[in-house]
Amino acid sequence: MPLLVVGTVALDSVETPTAVRDDILGGSAVFFSTAASHFSKVNLVGVVGEDWPPEHTAMLQSRGVDTSGLNIIKGGKTFRWRGKYLPNMNDRETLETHLNVLETFDPVLPASFRESKYVFLGNDSPKNQMKVLDQATGRQLVIADTMDLWIKIMRDELLALLKKLDGLVLNDSEAKLLSDEENLVTAGRKVLELGPRFVVIKKGEHGAMFFSRDETYVLPAYPTELVIDPTGAGDSFAGGMMGYLAEKQKFDPKTLKEALAYGVVTASFTVEDFSLDRLKTISRRDLDARWNEYRGMLSF
Amino acid sequence: MPLLVVGTVALDSVETPTAVRDDILGGSAVFFSTAASHFSKVNLVGVVGEDWPPEHTAMLQSRGVDTSGLNIIKGGKTFRWRGKYLPNMNDRETLETHLNVLETFDPVLPASFRESKYVFLGNDSPKNQMKVLDQATGRQLVIADTMDLWIKIMRDELLALLKKLDGLVLNDSEAKLLSDEENLVTAGRKVLELGPRFVVIKKGEHGAMFFSRDETYVLPAYPTELVIDPTGAGDSFAGGMMGYLAEKQKFDPKTLKEALAYGVVTASFTVEDFSLDRLKTISRRDLDARWNEYRGMLSF
Repeated sequence: MPLLVVGTVALDSVETPTAVRDDILGGSAVFFSTAASHFSKVNLVGVVGEDWPPEHTAMLQSRGVDTSGLNIIKGGKTFRWRGKYLPNMNDRETLETHLNVLETFDPVLPASFRESKYVFLGNDSPKNQMKVLDQATGRQLVIADTMDLWIKIMRDELLALLKKLDGLVLNDSEAKLLSDEENLVTAGRKVLELGPRFVVIKKGEHGAMFFSRDETYVLPAYPTELVIDPTGAGDSFAGGMMGYLAEKQKFDPKTLKEALAYGVVTASFTVEDFSLDRLKTISRRDLDARWNEYRGMLSF
Repeated sequence: MPLLVVGTVALDSVETPTAVRDDILGGSAVFFSTAASHFSKVNLVGVVGEDWPPEHTAMLQSRGVDTSGLNIIKGGKTFRWRGKYLPNMNDRETLETHLNVLETFDPVLPASFRESKYVFLGNDSPKNQMKVLDQATGRQLVIADTMDLWIKIMRDELLALLKKLDGLVLNDSEAKLLSDEENLVTAGRKVLELGPRFVVIKKGEHGAMFFSRDETYVLPAYPTELVIDPTGAGDSFAGGMMGYLAEKQKFDPKTLKEALAYGVVTASFTVEDFSLDRLKTISRRDLDARWNEYRGMLSF
């Protein structure tokens, strides 16, 4: 049973201290799908404009991603984001955001997608995320991402959504903002009280923290020297994690922790090149090898 | 065979967002000794002034720390440091530093200390650290700390010292400064090329990274909600690590990783109260219990 993802499909422009790339393939649903495609079939729902290069769709399809939920809006322009990374390659500033077709995006699931058991609600307004949830009638595990904007301007809708989630994935600054707590452990536990059965706080180059009623743990990032472009690391993390869960068709605590480790490892490949350039060229064997190495690093 | 530490003995004044403490017990050698005393006897070398409260010496002695190397300078004043933590409890600013008796500190090891096999050179000028090294004729494992000041004003002396070390422990910003690299993995490997057989980069609330010719790994910090005062966490980390090595009387890769984990766990207790208030009241059983819990967190 394919994994469902609803999220952004974008053309990113990325500036790093050593290079610039314009209009390269990006977006939460694209990073997520490509990451998850190493483990599972994926159903993608998103929206693009007439300027969308069809070879991107072909690439996703070749990886087992069903793109029948990708709407191409006539006369519309694809969502564009432009960002610049600071020399530490962890912090970035957004230079431009052009929502374009995203502005009026009203997610509708193709009938065949509604029975998806594993659902990822990529970063979007909580209103749209709730709409997807309502259509995903076969859902068994729903994990969502969010961002500072929605925490600030649509908090009530977000709080309503949180009560319906299995898992929430968010980054450290978002967790602090949502909980009004500076300590990340306290922040994670407070977010947990808002409804989800588990919470994952992404800490970029410092890894990820997991919180459930019964468990709290931290997994560091895989230590890599090769950080070319961190864009999409968070969505690749989520894609690797949920892809593994969808493959195993279970999400008990043990499988969840293994899945988080696959998320860490998948993200570590994403940052090794621009866009999907690294993630789409590695094999499942590469992921497994690094996952085993990572597991060894953490055992003593 | 006791573990030797040479470092600062201080009266700290600490301001956190919720409390202020004046003239409380601190200093690298004190945090290190107290941490290590859970595992091993400790020989301490340091200097204080006439204003030094004798009950601090008594406390250290009661923990198996030999203070015969603690010089009390007549008419002198003890080293004082005043710092203020930002709300995130990870970053801090130094408000005042009064070197006092430290200014003319010339470390001399009591004859009985010279045969110590395990030696920790707490943060001090590389000149003084080298002097200690030359006197420690029985040394088998030498680990040193350093700081940004020495990297900036005494780089040549520091580079000479690095070639004689087994291990160097430094924090992330110091590693970047010393290597002129932003990526911490690259920084760690470059520092390794400067001479030490292994390098440990401390990342505060994000844990620690280990580098040797054969291994690179990261251990996250133990996730704790209770962060009252982070002062001394780095020295407690080093003390827990070296205390464990001194107890085991070996430092093969497996033992080193176990020791690093004890360092992480020891530091996690230190931050739970001001000064040594938490570290001196816990037992070895508390350390072992948290170490086992931590190991479980990282296994999947």
